[in-house]
Amino acid sequence: MNTTTKNHWRSKLHDIIYEADTPAGKLFDLVLFIAIIASIILVMLESIDSFDKKYHNFLNISEWIITILFSIEYIARIITVKKPLKYIFSFYGIVDFLSTIPKYISLLFGGIHALAALRALRLLRIFRILKLARYLGASNMLISALRASRAKILVFLFAVLILCVICGTLMYLIEGEESGFSSIPVSVYWCIVTLTTVGFGDIAPVTPLGQFLAALIMIMGYGIIAVPTGIVSAEYSTQGTKKHPNPNTKVSLNSKSCENCLAESHSDKADYCYNCGEKLHI
Amino acid sequence: MNTTTKNHWRSKLHDIIYEADTPAGKLFDLVLFIAIIASIILVMLESIDSFDKKYHNFLNISEWIITILFSIEYIARIITVKKPLKYIFSFYGIVDFLSTIPKYISLLFGGIHALAALRALRLLRIFRILKLARYLGASNMLISALRASRAKILVFLFAVLILCVICGTLMYLIEGEESGFSSIPVSVYWCIVTLTTVGFGDIAPVTPLGQFLAALIMIMGYGIIAVPTGIVSAEYSTQGTKKHPNPNTKVSLNSKSCENCLAESHSDKADYCYNCGEKLHI
Amino acid sequence: MNTTTKNHWRSKLHDIIYEADTPAGKLFDLVLFIAIIASIILVMLESIDSFDKKYHNFLNISEWIITILFSIEYIARIITVKKPLKYIFSFYGIVDFLSTIPKYISLLFGGIHALAALRALRLLRIFRILKLARYLGASNMLISALRASRAKILVFLFAVLILCVICGTLMYLIEGEESGFSSIPVSVYWCIVTLTTVGFGDIAPVTPLGQFLAALIMIMGYGIIAVPTGIVSAEYSTQGTKKHPNPNTKVSLNSKSCENCLAESHSDKADYCYNCGEKLHI
Amino acid sequence: MNTTTKNHWRSKLHDIIYEADTPAGKLFDLVLFIAIIASIILVMLESIDSFDKKYHNFLNISEWIITILFSIEYIARIITVKKPLKYIFSFYGIVDFLSTIPKYISLLFGGIHALAALRALRLLRIFRILKLARYLGASNMLISALRASRAKILVFLFAVLILCVICGTLMYLIEGEESGFSSIPVSVYWCIVTLTTVGFGDIAPVTPLGQFLAALIMIMGYGIIAVPTGIVSAEYSTQGTKKHPNPNTKVSLNSKSCENCLAESHSDKADYCYNCGEKLHI
Repeated sequence: MNTTTKNHWRSKLHDIIYEADTPAGKLFDLVLFIAIIASIILVMLESIDSFDKKYHNFLNISEWIITILFSIEYIARIITVKKPLKYIFSFYGIVDFLSTIPKYISLLFGGIHALAALRALRLLRIFRILKLARYLGASNMLISALRASRAKILVFLFAVLILCVICGTLMYLIEGEESGFSSIPVSVYWCIVTLTTVGFGDIAPVTPLGQFLAALIMIMGYGIIAVPTGIVSAEYSTQGTKKHPNPNTKVSLNSKSCENCLAESHSDKADYCYNCGEKLHI
Repeated sequence: MNTTTKNHWRSKLHDIIYEADTPAGKLFDLVLFIAIIASIILVMLESIDSFDKKYHNFLNISEWIITILFSIEYIARIITVKKPLKYIFSFYGIVDFLSTIPKYISLLFGGIHALAALRALRLLRIFRILKLARYLGASNMLISALRASRAKILVFLFAVLILCVICGTLMYLIEGEESGFSSIPVSVYWCIVTLTTVGFGDIAPVTPLGQFLAALIMIMGYGIIAVPTGIVSAEYSTQGTKKHPNPNTKVSLNSKSCENCLAESHSDKADYCYNCGEKLHI
Repeated sequence: MNTTTKNHWRSKLHDIIYEADTPAGKLFDLVLFIAIIASIILVMLESIDSFDKKYHNFLNISEWIITILFSIEYIARIITVKKPLKYIFSFYGIVDFLSTIPKYISLLFGGIHALAALRALRLLRIFRILKLARYLGASNMLISALRASRAKILVFLFAVLILCVICGTLMYLIEGEESGFSSIPVSVYWCIVTLTTVGFGDIAPVTPLGQFLAALIMIMGYGIIAVPTGIVSAEYSTQGTKKHPNPNTKVSLNSKSCENCLAESHSDKADYCYNCGEKLHI
Repeated sequence: MNTTTKNHWRSKLHDIIYEADTPAGKLFDLVLFIAIIASIILVMLESIDSFDKKYHNFLNISEWIITILFSIEYIARIITVKKPLKYIFSFYGIVDFLSTIPKYISLLFGGIHALAALRALRLLRIFRILKLARYLGASNMLISALRASRAKILVFLFAVLILCVICGTLMYLIEGEESGFSSIPVSVYWCIVTLTTVGFGDIAPVTPLGQFLAALIMIMGYGIIAVPTGIVSAEYSTQGTKKHPNPNTKVSLNSKSCENCLAESHSDKADYCYNCGEKLHI
C-alpha cells in the first residue's frame, strides 16, 4: 500500500502549513512571512501618535484583516495536527494564540483607549515577530555553536557581573550622589554601560579619582571583550571541522514536520518520526 | 602574425585606461586617483558654508577643471571599448556618468542656489569616491571571506533585528514617552544603538526597570558581538589554508581587462578572454 | 583500618563546608550562595535613599540575620580546619572576616549615621560578592586561557596606554581648555574613553583639527581591538586542542579540599594532599 | 685573546646603557624607566592649572632634576657609541634629544609664560613616553602579527573610509544643518564616530529617515568589526604554529646591542654583529 493513497485534505493541508518543500508550502510560508512583517509595521506605526491620529481607520482595518488571517491560520494548524493540545501548549502554539487574541479583546473594551494595561496588550501583537523564529530555527550552524559555548559564556557573564558590582560600589563611594551615581544599583548600571563600551554619557564621573577608575574599567572592558569572541570563535571552528559526531548538533536542511507530535529536525532519509514513530510525509 | 602589429592608438589607449601593467597605465591610474580625491575634498569644502563664501570662485574653477578631466576620461572609455553600450550601462559606466553630469546641470540652473534638489545633485559628485572601488576590487582576500560568510551574517543580523524589535517594544512599554521613548520605532532605534554598543545617550532609560532591561540588552550585545567575529574568523582561516579549490575565490593579481566585454580577473597566463573569447593584450 | 572510622563530627563538618560532593555539602553551598546574593541585594537597596527611609527596620533586621549566619559560618570554618591561622590569613579567610565585621562595628557607632568612613565600611559588605569567586574558581577553561595570554595582554594594554598619553596630549594642545580638555590627565582620560569605543560624550572635540584627530583615534581603536581578541582566540584554541601537558592548566572537577592546609585542585584519584601529605576524605 | 680583556670603561658603560643582561644594566634600565614615568607625571600635573599654581616650585625643581638626568644619559649614550652621528639621527637619538631640550629653551624665555608655542614645546616633554618603546620593542609576537596583516588592515580601513564618506554625505542630505550635521566633513566625522561604535552623542540624528540610516550604519559597523579581528586572529594563529621560517619574524629574547651600529635583535648565539661585523659583548 502506497503512503500517498492515505492522504486526504487534512494531510495535504498539514504539508502546506508545516512543511516548505512543496510549491504550495513555499507560497504559504511567503504569505505568512509578509503578513507577520506587515503586522509588525502596523503596530509600530500605531505607536507613533501623530500617525495614529491621521490614519486611525486605515490602521484599524488593516489590523483586522491581519488578525482574521492569523485566526484562520491558527484554526487550520489546530485542525491538521493529530494532537491539537500538544500544539496549543507548545511554544509556537502559545505565540500564535497571543498573536491573534489582543485585537478581539480590544473589541470588548473598544472605547476605553487610555487603559494602560490594554495598550500594553495591544502592543503584545508585536511579538508576532517571534513567529519568524520558525525561519531561523533549524537551518543554521550559529545556534549549535552558541549552544555548545553557552555554559562558558554564562560563566563569563557571571564573572563580568561580579566585576560590575564591585566597580559600581567603588564608583558610588568615590563619586558620591552629586555626579549622578545616586545609589549602588545605578552605579552598577553605569558600570555595565561602561564595561560593555556602550557609554551613554547620561552619567559620567567628574572627580579625578572617579575618572581614573572609569578609565581602568574601560580598558578592562576593552581587554575582556576578547573572551567571549575567543570562545565562540574556537567553538565555531570546531563545529566547522568536526564530522558531527554528536547527533544533537547535526543540522538537517529539510523542513519535515511530524503530523502527530510536531517534532522537527528529521534526518533527510527518515520515513518515520524519531519521536513517536508516526509515518512522515515525503 | 604578431598580436602587437594589430595595436593602433585605440588599442594602446585601452591598455592605458583599463590596465595598470604599463608605465603609462600606472601614471593614468595615479592621476585618476588624485583627481578623485581632489574632487571629494572640493565637494566637502563646498559644503562648509563659511569656506564656500570665502573661496567660491576657486572652488568653482577647480570643480570645472576636474569635471572636464572626468568628461575626457568618460569619452575616452567609451571610444576605446568595442561594445560602448555595455560599458555605459555597467556599474562603473553609470558611476562615471553620474560623476560628470551634475556640474553641467548646475550650469543650466546656475543662479538658483537654494534649490534643495539641485544641491543634492551637486553633492552627488561625492559618489565619485565609488570610482575608488576599482582599486579595492580584485586584489584582496577580504571580499571572498565576507562573501563566503554573507549568508550566515545576514541570518545573524536578522536575529539581532528580531531581538531589537522585542526589546524596543518592552522599553517603550516600561519607559513611556517622557524619557524619549516616544514610539516603538524610536525605541527600536534606541535598542539598535545600545545593542551595537554605540550608545549616543540622546535617549537613555530613567526608570529602574528600564535601566535593568537596558543592562541586560548591553550584556547581550557584548556577548553576541562574538558571533559575527567567530564566523568571519573561521571563514578567513579556511580561506587562508585551503588551496583555492573554488575558482571563484581565486584571486589574480594582474590588471588585464577585456577590450570587448570589460571582463576582469583574468588568469595570469590567459591569452583569450574567458567570457567572450576576445584576444587579450599582454 | 577504614578511613571512615576516623571521621568524627569535625571531619564531617569539614566535608559539608569545604566540599560539594555530598548532599549535605551541596545544600550548604546552595544556602551560602543564596545568603550571599540576598546580602548583596540588601546593601544595594540600603544605598537607595528613598527605599532606606521607608523600610529601614526590615533592612536592619535582615542584615543582622545574614551577619549572624556568616558569623556562624566563619567560626565553623575556623573550627573544622586543622591549621586555623592559615585559613584566617588566606584570601577567603580575610574576605569571610570582612564580610562579617562591618555590622558589628556599626553597632558601636550606631547613632552616628552620617560618618562617611562608617558608611564606606557598611558598603564594604558588598564585597561578600567575592565569596562567589569560590563557585567560579576551579571549574573553567577561561581562566587558564586568560592566564596563558596574560603577559601579551599586559604588553598590549601598556602600548595602548602610551598611545593614549600621546594622543591625549595632542588633543590638549589642539582643542584647548574651552572644549573641556582642561588638562592633560583629562585629555588622556578622554582618549581612553574614545579608543575603547565607550564614547561618553561629556567631552567632545569641537575644532575641525580635533575632530580629525579624534576620527583617527577611533579608527585606530576599531582596528586594534582585534589584537587582544586574536590573542585570546589563538590561546583558547590551543588550550582546547592540546592534551594538557602542563599540570598547572589541568582542571580537576571534584571539590576535594585538604583539611590541614586548605589546598584545592586535587586530582580525581588523589588519596593524600599533594601539598602537605594529609589524608583526604573521599 | 679573551674578549673581556678589551673592555675598558667605555665598553662597560655601553653594556650598562644599551644592554640589560648584567645587574648594572638592569639597574640602569629600572632607574631610566622610573625617571621617564616620573617625568610624564610631572608634565601631566603641570597641565592642571590649580595644581601648577600651588606647587609651581616643586614641579620646576623636579623637572630640572629629571632634565639633568636625561642630559647625562644622552651624553653618555653619545660617548659610548662608536658612531655617535648614527645614534644622534636614529629614532631613539632624536627622541632622547627632544626629551632634554625643551627645559633649556624654557630657560631662555623663562618669564614669558603665556607664549602658546612655548607652552606646546614644554608639553613636548611628554613624548619622553616614546622612550618606553624600548621596553616594548623587540620582545613580543604581537608586532610581527600586526606587521604581517598590515596591508589587509589598511585595505579594510580604506574601505571603511569610503563607506563613511558615502554615509556621511547621505546623512548631511537627510538631516540638514539643524541637527548638527552642518557640513559634509562633520557628517563624515559623525559617521566614523558611529561606525566605530564610539557614539559620543554630541551630534545625533533626529529625523526618522536619519535614524533609520543611522541604525543601518551601526549594524554594519557591528557586523564588519569582525573583519580586522578575523584577520589578526588568523595571522596570529599562523604566527604561533609555524616554525618561524622567515628570519624577520623570529624574536630573540636577549638584549644584545652592537656598539658600532646600534643594531638589535641579535641571535642568542651571535658573536659578531649581523649588520656590520663588529664583535659583540657577551
